[in-house]
Amino acid sequence: MTALAPVLDTLDATLDASLDRLFDLLRIQSISTDPAYRDQCRQAAEWLAKDLQSIGFSASVRDTTGHPMVVAHHDGPSPDAPHVLFYGHYDVQPVDPLNLWESDPFEPSLKEVSPGRRIITGRGSADDKGQLMTFVEACRAYKQAHGALPCRVSILFEGEEESGSPSLKPFLEANAAELKADFALVCDTGMWDRDTPAISTGLRGLVGEEITVKAANRDLHSGSFGGAAANPIRILAKILADIHDETGRVTIPGFYDGVEETPSQVLASWETLGETAEDFLGPIGLSIPSGEKGRSVLELVWARPTAEFNGIIGGYTGKGFKTVIAAEASSKISFRLVHKQDPIKIRDAFRDFVRARIPADCSVEFHEHGGSPAIQLSYDSPFLAKAKDALSDEWPKPAVMIAMGGSIPIVGDFQTYLGMESLLVGFGLSDDRIHSPNEKYELSSFHKGQRSWARILDALAR
Amino acid sequence: MTALAPVLDTLDATLDASLDRLFDLLRIQSISTDPAYRDQCRQAAEWLAKDLQSIGFSASVRDTTGHPMVVAHHDGPSPDAPHVLFYGHYDVQPVDPLNLWESDPFEPSLKEVSPGRRIITGRGSADDKGQLMTFVEACRAYKQAHGALPCRVSILFEGEEESGSPSLKPFLEANAAELKADFALVCDTGMWDRDTPAISTGLRGLVGEEITVKAANRDLHSGSFGGAAANPIRILAKILADIHDETGRVTIPGFYDGVEETPSQVLASWETLGETAEDFLGPIGLSIPSGEKGRSVLELVWARPTAEFNGIIGGYTGKGFKTVIAAEASSKISFRLVHKQDPIKIRDAFRDFVRARIPADCSVEFHEHGGSPAIQLSYDSPFLAKAKDALSDEWPKPAVMIAMGGSIPIVGDFQTYLGMESLLVGFGLSDDRIHSPNEKYELSSFHKGQRSWARILDALAR
Repeated sequence: MTALAPVLDTLDATLDASLDRLFDLLRIQSISTDPAYRDQCRQAAEWLAKDLQSIGFSASVRDTTGHPMVVAHHDGPSPDAPHVLFYGHYDVQPVDPLNLWESDPFEPSLKEVSPGRRIITGRGSADDKGQLMTFVEACRAYKQAHGALPCRVSILFEGEEESGSPSLKPFLEANAAELKADFALVCDTGMWDRDTPAISTGLRGLVGEEITVKAANRDLHSGSFGGAAANPIRILAKILADIHDETGRVTIPGFYDGVEETPSQVLASWETLGETAEDFLGPIGLSIPSGEKGRSVLELVWARPTAEFNGIIGGYTGKGFKTVIAAEASSKISFRLVHKQDPIKIRDAFRDFVRARIPADCSVEFHEHGGSPAIQLSYDSPFLAKAKDALSDEWPKPAVMIAMGGSIPIVGDFQTYLGMESLLVGFGLSDDRIHSPNEKYELSSFHKGQRSWARILDALAR
Repeated sequence: MTALAPVLDTLDATLDASLDRLFDLLRIQSISTDPAYRDQCRQAAEWLAKDLQSIGFSASVRDTTGHPMVVAHHDGPSPDAPHVLFYGHYDVQPVDPLNLWESDPFEPSLKEVSPGRRIITGRGSADDKGQLMTFVEACRAYKQAHGALPCRVSILFEGEEESGSPSLKPFLEANAAELKADFALVCDTGMWDRDTPAISTGLRGLVGEEITVKAANRDLHSGSFGGAAANPIRILAKILADIHDETGRVTIPGFYDGVEETPSQVLASWETLGETAEDFLGPIGLSIPSGEKGRSVLELVWARPTAEFNGIIGGYTGKGFKTVIAAEASSKISFRLVHKQDPIKIRDAFRDFVRARIPADCSVEFHEHGGSPAIQLSYDSPFLAKAKDALSDEWPKPAVMIAMGGSIPIVGDFQTYLGMESLLVGFGLSDDRIHSPNEKYELSSFHKGQRSWARILDALAR
């Protein structure tokens, strides 16, 4: 057993060097969803493997049919020390619209936004490169201070988290023996607020779909054919409009099968967090919850399913005007799932719903973009209790148990393929603008995140 | 008075040279709606002025705040000869999606598509460069055969017809004395079919609008905010879906004010044309009329108003998937007007309709893209009777009176600013794919169109 204090001191003393390393990683344009950035994704994987090797991990880049995985292992102080598998992802979201970025998304910088508060700017700073490096830096500091780690540590870095993780399940299945640990540490979530760390125990699932409505065999002049020929934008708009009723409920038959009412004591605990619709929506310029009426914003994003339209395109979208009736129009649509909603049933029900609204002389094509059920983690694991205490020691306020609106399919996959529970700890803030222009990560998240992982590793080893 | 036969012989003998000239004009990328093609629009205007000068017209390029006009004049055989103003437009529609073109849109070619049937390919071949050159070639042949024209001829070529004609009204107003003639010849319409010429006596009007729905102050992660934050694509889809009811009628209050039922004898005459929904929609791969139920396709496109969605965009539209809630979404929408529908009232009613559907914490911006009322020309003008006979002499079948689904705002502007009726004659076919990839113009339209104008000028001068 090693002492924690020298590790924390090392982290404080080496913050600048850790920032240089993070900036190197942030400069790599590892956009996984766009095939044009294939080489950059591999470059990020190789950078990480090399960095882990420099700390003493046996680390390697593993090919998949998509972007590669990084797998690394490090011994603990003894064979019976706890064994954790840390997970993060090195891929990032696309950066469009580029003109809304205040600085180059791939040229990270440190900016002082108010006295004493500094942020790290750039795509991936919060999601997820900045987060995963908090753990790597904690390991590095342990090695520097003590020449050893307090636990046996394995690491898995994925490069397809932002594009549906197509290679993940086969990889976990093929490498289950190597990757299995006592439990997983997943660092892709957020804090409750700037002072309050959080452990996420619930995660919404996701079904992603893309539909293309096809009408005429070519674009038409709306003067010659308008009023007679089917317009795919009109058909698509009607489909999308039909998906919600006046109360904000999703109308797809069977959509709410498996959705449970949140227990009143859970709702009451969320109530104590004091988050109003104004608190939640104000920072993004809104004030009225758009989901099912009569539920708090926290319940809406943590415990209720949704249908969201993530993109739509059809016809002429350039400057000026073109009096055209398009041959086709398409939309990307996602469903957030909770509790026991079945992704396969939801997808099938959605497709039936769409097909029923396609005129007989038109057609529709579907394209699948991933699917995963919701996750509910147990509240009473000993790992959870240790991590909660460790986090509470580091931050101004005690750690809270929350749920997450987004999907982290890896948590379900770890359960399914490795029989392993996950501990979800992360240091993002709700204003980090992940997936948006001007993504940032607080310098305090990066620094105290490193210290938090050092504390958690120390606690888990006790 | 000059003899017609030598003029027709000249047109037959010089067809190849007339094609070379048309191809030169088609190569100029005069896309008026896209500011990137500003120089090419001027180039087209200059090419036309120079060509008209070579025939003996006093022709000049006239600056506007947008793309320039071409104005030209030529004396007739005597000061009291009829005076016509010929109108065409040298600008063309954008060419996207470029990948659907079988050959370069701006490298015209002559293709034999079946034995004896050849087509001219390229953007603008039918709309409207090929059409306007039929008249220019008829004038050239008259000069070559007789050294004179049978009428006094003025010409106005516009360069903003495909982008809402912002400069036209001020130009007509400022130059009314110079441009006023006995009546106008407008060549921007089509034939009834390959064998049957047509004169258009009704034209739908147009209101063009672009709306942008704005919700959050930035793009959001749909996991973090989905179910709580307003989604502008959902708001926009609901607005568009609300615009039509189940029977295909437009639901905007007051939309049908000024719409008249088409007289039964007119409907009966259209009935004799024998056009079924299958005839009309079959070539574009459709079969079911999408407009108001219980009306023929000809009535739908010639005599009923419409709301069409010409473009829509919002959120992530690239490859793959992005779980984003967009900050804004927009759509280009046009209304085709008939009879006495008022463009200003329609625009106002539409905007009220949209505003009523914007949540209190969101906003909408409107951008106007032109507006013009419908036109109904008189059936009993002597010019019309002469032109009808002249066309019937040239083509296999007699000319018919039809209506047009599209807008040609110039016809209303000639009435308003120059107090002048128009004669609408054109040689386009419904499969010319104007505004679409692979636009073409029949070689027979180009050649017999030239001969038709020669006959019409000859008939008008009698």
